[in-house]
Amino acid sequence: MISMKEIGKICGVTESTVSKALRGHAGIKQATRERVMEVARKYGYQPNAMVECMQTGKSRSIGIACNNFQCMFTGAVMDGIHKTLHDYGYDSYVICWDKLVKDKIDLLSRFARRRVDGLLLLPMEHLPEPIHIAALHAFHNPVVLIDQAWSGADFDYVGSDNRGGMATLVERLIAAGHKKIGSVFFPEVSSGEERKAGFLDAMFRHNLPVDARSLCKVHDPKNSYEEIRRALDVPERPDALVCFNDYLANDALNAAFDLGIRVPEELAITGFGNLPFCEKLRPMLTTVDQHAFQIGQSAARLLMERITGNETGPYHTQLIPTEVIIRQSCIC
Amino acid sequence: MISMKEIGKICGVTESTVSKALRGHAGIKQATRERVMEVARKYGYQPNAMVECMQTGKSRSIGIACNNFQCMFTGAVMDGIHKTLHDYGYDSYVICWDKLVKDKIDLLSRFARRRVDGLLLLPMEHLPEPIHIAALHAFHNPVVLIDQAWSGADFDYVGSDNRGGMATLVERLIAAGHKKIGSVFFPEVSSGEERKAGFLDAMFRHNLPVDARSLCKVHDPKNSYEEIRRALDVPERPDALVCFNDYLANDALNAAFDLGIRVPEELAITGFGNLPFCEKLRPMLTTVDQHAFQIGQSAARLLMERITGNETGPYHTQLIPTEVIIRQSCIC
Repeated sequence: MISMKEIGKICGVTESTVSKALRGHAGIKQATRERVMEVARKYGYQPNAMVECMQTGKSRSIGIACNNFQCMFTGAVMDGIHKTLHDYGYDSYVICWDKLVKDKIDLLSRFARRRVDGLLLLPMEHLPEPIHIAALHAFHNPVVLIDQAWSGADFDYVGSDNRGGMATLVERLIAAGHKKIGSVFFPEVSSGEERKAGFLDAMFRHNLPVDARSLCKVHDPKNSYEEIRRALDVPERPDALVCFNDYLANDALNAAFDLGIRVPEELAITGFGNLPFCEKLRPMLTTVDQHAFQIGQSAARLLMERITGNETGPYHTQLIPTEVIIRQSCIC
Repeated sequence: MISMKEIGKICGVTESTVSKALRGHAGIKQATRERVMEVARKYGYQPNAMVECMQTGKSRSIGIACNNFQCMFTGAVMDGIHKTLHDYGYDSYVICWDKLVKDKIDLLSRFARRRVDGLLLLPMEHLPEPIHIAALHAFHNPVVLIDQAWSGADFDYVGSDNRGGMATLVERLIAAGHKKIGSVFFPEVSSGEERKAGFLDAMFRHNLPVDARSLCKVHDPKNSYEEIRRALDVPERPDALVCFNDYLANDALNAAFDLGIRVPEELAITGFGNLPFCEKLRPMLTTVDQHAFQIGQSAARLLMERITGNETGPYHTQLIPTEVIIRQSCIC
């Protein structure tokens, strides 16, 4: 792209005159201004966003810490974020949190050097340590957490109504006559704990027995298929299996198929998320729609309202309502 | 984050002295320098990347034009890109091409205002018009296209060996005894044309008949299931169906399942890409691995070599070798 200096050369004026002419400064002759504007247009000159940033104190950019681009939930959230940023005329820096953690490089200083006006943090593989949380508090610009809350950390947070959504789904299974309902969860992350709580809410409300065997913990996502298959390959297996997310439900469908267990006749299976592939599975997967796109939109909107100063109240927790989607993998 | 001005206040020196001390400038007393450094560290001061950019002429950032964050191929490419950028100490701006095209906002000026040192362009829904290509040529900084080449556009390009990979796959099917091989393609995009060419290469090499009916064009990705189902629901259907990508192959598996056609016994089905869900399908999908992560790495590396001036030769076309992955959806 052409520089102001080069425009000046073509027009036979100084760089300073070009700068003044482009900013509509007084004291520049009409003819000079028009000539400068014409050359700038012709050669596609663009004002320098960094200069604007230093003048206004706003970079009109945010930082997004993202872990796994291959996760469809993350993808839909990212789509929602970028739709909203686009509406506000903002751009995003994207940095992979987990790679930086692994190399012990400080994510925040990377963002701080870019002078981003705020941060969106997507779920991470490595939960943040107190030192990270302290650094985020010292960052001064607004921060919004997405999908996973951090205990003991005061930040704006946008996620799903995990507990309510899961309870509603399990109520539907109970209403359809299921009594031996098992579940498959990831330990430790906040969304997992909330969904487990929703599962227990519904079970206890109906006085249905819950024992340790019906709470299958997946320890290693890479071996989820094997762990679920082992949980199903027992004489007294459940008649419904409620999974933490759609990926685990896909594994459960496969384990059932490979063990010769008919779904939904002998075993109902449900997911959580309503990722695009749910309709592509056979049987199609019953699940809870998290409205991931809307989560991304809401998080970006909340961040932008903080940045513009329209929102100055205490930290928000925004839970996007969920919706049970009944498909072929259960009889409801 | 603390500013240089605030550091100056704490240390009782001017902002200019702070700036010089932080940059290791001569003429600053040792004691002052140490005090400034200590306060900067304590309050987490970060140098302003924008000032560095204006001093060096490099922003140490690139622009990525991305369309669909929910596509797993794109996700793996993005992971590869960010791994490489991370190694070079570069950050990325991410902008959604299609949203800008729809709103008639100029993508390039967005990137130019950020003074990005180069561009990576992922596949777009709307093919670029000559005016976009001319604007990219006028951009002056290096540009690398990923996965889809544009005819008549001279840019570095990193993609898959689509033609060779597809020909090898079809050879395997022919060797396994298939004679009536149908195919499902998207029209117009370069990767679709190349895979179609690879399909025809193998068919003609073995004197196998190809007629229009065996080349099923999917006109609308949203209706791919219905279009494939119609193509399969005929008396003289093929005994193998070669699909442009894994998503279409998933639709084909579902259409076969819903029509009661047994895969692979009555119909072999293959994909292209080797996206993570191929192993999660039943039957597991035979496909061609594109090594999407490696495509992202190679594209980012080529761009970085252009930016650093290590690579100054004519435009490259880098085709990442593909690999046939035989799974349950065919008997080979």
